[in-house]
Amino acid sequence: MDPMISPIASRADAEAADAADALAPIRERFAVPEAIYLDGNSLGALPAGVASAMAEAVNQAWGQDLIASWNDHGWWTLPGRVGNTIGALIGAAPGQVMCGDSTSVQLFQALVGLSRANPGRPVLAVDAGDFPTDRYITDSVARLLGLTVERVDPNRFVPDGRTAVVAFSAVNFATGELRDLAGITDAVHAAGGLMCWDLAHAAGALPLDVDGLGADAAVGCTYKYLCGGPGSPAFLYVAERHHPSLDLPLAGWHGHAEPFAMADRYRPAAGIERARVGTPPILSMIATEAALTVWEGVSLSDVRAKSLALTDLIVTFADGHLSPFGVEVVTPREHHRRGSQVALRVPHAFELSRALIARGVIGDFRPPDVLRLGVAPLYLRHSQVWDAMEILAGVLAANEHLDAVFARRGGAVT
Amino acid sequence: MDPMISPIASRADAEAADAADALAPIRERFAVPEAIYLDGNSLGALPAGVASAMAEAVNQAWGQDLIASWNDHGWWTLPGRVGNTIGALIGAAPGQVMCGDSTSVQLFQALVGLSRANPGRPVLAVDAGDFPTDRYITDSVARLLGLTVERVDPNRFVPDGRTAVVAFSAVNFATGELRDLAGITDAVHAAGGLMCWDLAHAAGALPLDVDGLGADAAVGCTYKYLCGGPGSPAFLYVAERHHPSLDLPLAGWHGHAEPFAMADRYRPAAGIERARVGTPPILSMIATEAALTVWEGVSLSDVRAKSLALTDLIVTFADGHLSPFGVEVVTPREHHRRGSQVALRVPHAFELSRALIARGVIGDFRPPDVLRLGVAPLYLRHSQVWDAMEILAGVLAANEHLDAVFARRGGAVT
Repeated sequence: MDPMISPIASRADAEAADAADALAPIRERFAVPEAIYLDGNSLGALPAGVASAMAEAVNQAWGQDLIASWNDHGWWTLPGRVGNTIGALIGAAPGQVMCGDSTSVQLFQALVGLSRANPGRPVLAVDAGDFPTDRYITDSVARLLGLTVERVDPNRFVPDGRTAVVAFSAVNFATGELRDLAGITDAVHAAGGLMCWDLAHAAGALPLDVDGLGADAAVGCTYKYLCGGPGSPAFLYVAERHHPSLDLPLAGWHGHAEPFAMADRYRPAAGIERARVGTPPILSMIATEAALTVWEGVSLSDVRAKSLALTDLIVTFADGHLSPFGVEVVTPREHHRRGSQVALRVPHAFELSRALIARGVIGDFRPPDVLRLGVAPLYLRHSQVWDAMEILAGVLAANEHLDAVFARRGGAVT
Repeated sequence: MDPMISPIASRADAEAADAADALAPIRERFAVPEAIYLDGNSLGALPAGVASAMAEAVNQAWGQDLIASWNDHGWWTLPGRVGNTIGALIGAAPGQVMCGDSTSVQLFQALVGLSRANPGRPVLAVDAGDFPTDRYITDSVARLLGLTVERVDPNRFVPDGRTAVVAFSAVNFATGELRDLAGITDAVHAAGGLMCWDLAHAAGALPLDVDGLGADAAVGCTYKYLCGGPGSPAFLYVAERHHPSLDLPLAGWHGHAEPFAMADRYRPAAGIERARVGTPPILSMIATEAALTVWEGVSLSDVRAKSLALTDLIVTFADGHLSPFGVEVVTPREHHRRGSQVALRVPHAFELSRALIARGVIGDFRPPDVLRLGVAPLYLRHSQVWDAMEILAGVLAANEHLDAVFARRGGAVT
């Protein structure tokens, strides 16, 4: 961690950090859950404005105004509007991000589109340790296009003249490792390849600058740090320079240049509008649009500073108090290599995650042995994270989680 | 029309039909719009139970229970549950329908999956007059798989040994023509082809029996006659006999045999679960699940009988009262060739649709000259349809819609 900042090492430190927290007022924008919620990297908390937006969308827009709502309630322009809002949070100038579908579908679109934009090169490179859907979709795209997939370690990957497209996640879902976004993007470009970043665990967690990076495409979900709701629609960013020739496989009618002309042949719309596919899930997307208002006026530098203070707290506490229980910090200790979560390797991590839930601390388990603690700076307090770590230490000291281990093995419950 | 049934030819006839309507109580399950809504073939009306289901989903499941809701509120099993509910309405035994994504995406899945199941045949056949997305997606699939698309007239189409997959809509979106589902399916099978039906304008509009037909796949949206909400997730039916070898292109992690094992390679789940892709739009799908409860105990034979009574009313009225205004009935007059809408060809159809909206009658316009009047038997009254036709006659007689035509041309407003 950064040696210039003293880590939070007591509850008093945590309370002092809360008192000085520039983001403290943002917490009021949420219907904060009663538990200490360290799983915002899986599903973000509920912004307070969503419920009324949904009631309006259901009762008035759907119930009374019906099809007129495509114009009168802005349903038709919703995907692009939400896309631009997301774009502002990932460093994309307007007109380059479209909201819709799932991350899996958007990655399929991006990889086919970029592969077609870089013909004559046989290889798609994907992180061997990436989230499963990234690997599976890359395999499927390669098969459809007659390409080869290479599964690589992003930290050691050397692109070459065979590299068509590289798809890495900015932050690894399991370890929380943040990649060298600029260095990798530059190396891929230097070799003549195109770069697609999966921002699922990065968007809303730290400042991003997809335009500045020169990324060719990016995808991500909106239900983690962005707090867009369960299964909220994903997004696709494609850099403007690729738009004129962008050739996407899911040629649905919403992406047509004249969707209501019902033309004989597909002719893609100008710009990122061509990344629309079919009719989007309006209610989910309205929830996302309402949810994203929590980001108004929020500085992502403040988010990043608080995120690092919170993950530093976890790392320092684990080093100081949890190593006797076999707990090992998996997430890189260097700030520039860390996202907004800490992965702790610990025996019986699954049972530990269950025991913590019983004590009101929500983290999650990733096989085989990782307890994943995500920190969402918009609504978490430093003192909550401190309390969570003390509870974790208490569970480990009392072996509470081993009851479940013994029960599962058919042994006596202690 | 069926000569055994006297068509409704007066408001008194319509009121008598309302009094005898077996579906009249079902109307109480809806938050019925104030207008006379003849566009349920575009977006179905709001079922009354949706608002409370959404409030619960937002405030409790998302807001408080958060990730635990994947189990505790049944989010994980939601797509298959909704799929089975849809299945019951289209004649599919359980375990063959998955809910998710858009119709465009589901059609992409179906066409790639069926093409791979029928290798060595070069042709995909699609209705030349089908809804645009069906034609565009078929073209895209053919391009990816190295196949050829033939655009045909479903009523004259003769499949042959080159036919891999045929994709037709059961009911044409523009004309309302219902195809010969059994005859076409049998002919395609006799030639060794596979049949995919797009049920967007058929599901919930008439009895369907995809299992009995022997259809290989079917897709459809849920926001028209099924009343699942704006942009509600679509569905994919694949006949069970194809499941063991079903090879879908969107190999997202939700369709994996062990999604949480995070396995190195994609291994599809057994059965229709492999048709899951990424994280689905939970809020939209919860709305759909709540909405579909309006179908409980509804006989689709009753739906069909009322639908034909209502479309007969429109056809009879148009023949008797509207032909002097140049109105022509496009939709087939034979019941076995008619879906649940009537398309009227009429000069200045766009302006006419706007003038009707101003008078509280919601239909829609399809270029170049069609006024489309859809009838949704669950919530429409015979007397409403009668009134709509009288209003339509009044607008035409007074030339109300021509004001807009003149205004658009820069002429004097009469």
